[in-house]
Amino acid sequence: MAEHVWDRSRIHHTWDIDLMAALEVASGDVVHYDIPMAGDGQVALDGSFADCRFDFDTMYNLAGPMTVAGAEPGDTLKVEILSLETGAWGWCSMLPEIGLLPMDFPSGYLRTFRLDVDPIPFAPGISIPKAPFFGTMGTHPGEPARNVPFPPHRGGGNMDNRHLQQGATLWLPVHVPGAMFSVGDPHACQGDGEVCVAALECSMRASMRFTLEKRTIPCPQWRSPGALTPRSDSHGYHGTMGIADDLMEGARLAVRAMIDWLEGEHGLSRPDAYVLCSLAGDLKIVEIVDAGMWNVGFTMPLNLFAANI
Amino acid sequence: MAEHVWDRSRIHHTWDIDLMAALEVASGDVVHYDIPMAGDGQVALDGSFADCRFDFDTMYNLAGPMTVAGAEPGDTLKVEILSLETGAWGWCSMLPEIGLLPMDFPSGYLRTFRLDVDPIPFAPGISIPKAPFFGTMGTHPGEPARNVPFPPHRGGGNMDNRHLQQGATLWLPVHVPGAMFSVGDPHACQGDGEVCVAALECSMRASMRFTLEKRTIPCPQWRSPGALTPRSDSHGYHGTMGIADDLMEGARLAVRAMIDWLEGEHGLSRPDAYVLCSLAGDLKIVEIVDAGMWNVGFTMPLNLFAANI
Repeated sequence: MAEHVWDRSRIHHTWDIDLMAALEVASGDVVHYDIPMAGDGQVALDGSFADCRFDFDTMYNLAGPMTVAGAEPGDTLKVEILSLETGAWGWCSMLPEIGLLPMDFPSGYLRTFRLDVDPIPFAPGISIPKAPFFGTMGTHPGEPARNVPFPPHRGGGNMDNRHLQQGATLWLPVHVPGAMFSVGDPHACQGDGEVCVAALECSMRASMRFTLEKRTIPCPQWRSPGALTPRSDSHGYHGTMGIADDLMEGARLAVRAMIDWLEGEHGLSRPDAYVLCSLAGDLKIVEIVDAGMWNVGFTMPLNLFAANI
Repeated sequence: MAEHVWDRSRIHHTWDIDLMAALEVASGDVVHYDIPMAGDGQVALDGSFADCRFDFDTMYNLAGPMTVAGAEPGDTLKVEILSLETGAWGWCSMLPEIGLLPMDFPSGYLRTFRLDVDPIPFAPGISIPKAPFFGTMGTHPGEPARNVPFPPHRGGGNMDNRHLQQGATLWLPVHVPGAMFSVGDPHACQGDGEVCVAALECSMRASMRFTLEKRTIPCPQWRSPGALTPRSDSHGYHGTMGIADDLMEGARLAVRAMIDWLEGEHGLSRPDAYVLCSLAGDLKIVEIVDAGMWNVGFTMPLNLFAANI
């Protein structure tokens, strides 16, 4: 089993079947990465939204593509997430016209955070435990042959699954010879939903082991070795419910109610409350079967507000 | 603060503004309940689906309505769930044409369970920790004045929120004078989603404290005193992901993939796998913001398969 150090200069910004592989590994090999944040060079620590120079064509920095020897369509690529370590700082922003509530938050807004402490200070009396993961890990989907990096796809991609933390295992379907795996979009923390459209975006050092499995899975799957939210559970949760005949509308109602609660109970501005929902709140489908009315839950861990976590 | 014992004969089956209150309490009072299971008398322990005599007009047994002195529209009713204790047995069923996957499971299917042990044996090598709650708790919604008990509504109702366990607190909006609170649909366990349309339906003894708050909330909210899934976390989780441009379709893909996994990895029949998903698996919205493609996660606790929990 070989170990490889990823060449930091081998970064790409789109899913493209014609890209040359930057590295080929054998099943069982380990790769060590140091991946720049999304928006690297386009956002500044302590800057404002007006200072940002977001370029959607280049903001997603993906380390890849990497081929795995012998991988064929129909196989499964196992990815063991051995270690994850965030860089020194990160950012989160609202962006006009996207996210879950663009109608409520039409303007851009930026927050930046130093990551040399844990939990991460968010506001007076409020801090968020680090829980790092990569927003994007994927094999090339085959179809379409070329695409922007933002939508997740049948090879995984921008899944934004907060549960893929250190110690977790991910299984991805293989759709093209060699699998063509790429990884990026590092996050220091994010809740289920990523509701404001961004997580706490940062750079990441990481080590991952890749193993080829000669079996077929219908969709990306993962394994967590323990509790899913161990750093959030100590003080309980506040929850809201969005009851509606549409899951998207239920999610909007639940997140809006949590923003109201964060504003009324904890004195946050509405933009900061929305950002905190994205970084630390979790969307759940509480029920999806009751006579055409669904219940979407949104939970906020109360240890965010504890003096000592 | 008075304590009341609910008259077991005061059961109703619909939301109806014209029902006479069965009890009036003062703010701060405690009520002790003993509520029959959904389908009481229509399902038999160790029976089969063919033996069931489901009557949808009478199967939901709600203890209510109860009025709270001084409650007015715009107020909030706080419900503290002091204790919950299941009855001796319970059931779960697939029902034709309803649930998340009626196209995959067109037939009815019944499982019954003895509840005098914890965890609850499900199949050889598989058992489910008890985690009881009421599927239905609600104030009368005002509009509509009369309705069947199945859809949740703006006063709560059939929310099927598994997190409303012993020690949790629920806040409900008040829409009619006196609040007109009802409770029923006891569950011994259920995952987020209740995907096959039923939980582990059982009878329940319970004590709850009701407090009137002169403030307005936009939707039902709750508080959990600790971890949301403490009885499921010990051995980690297996997770599937449904990536689609529609949340409902993503949920179907994720649950189907878990049924495949339960069949292939643990040898369950597909109907039993679907029922286990309903009783123990959790639907999450992993991301809801990525370029029109959403990611719905479904997680299964691995301690179900542990010899000793």
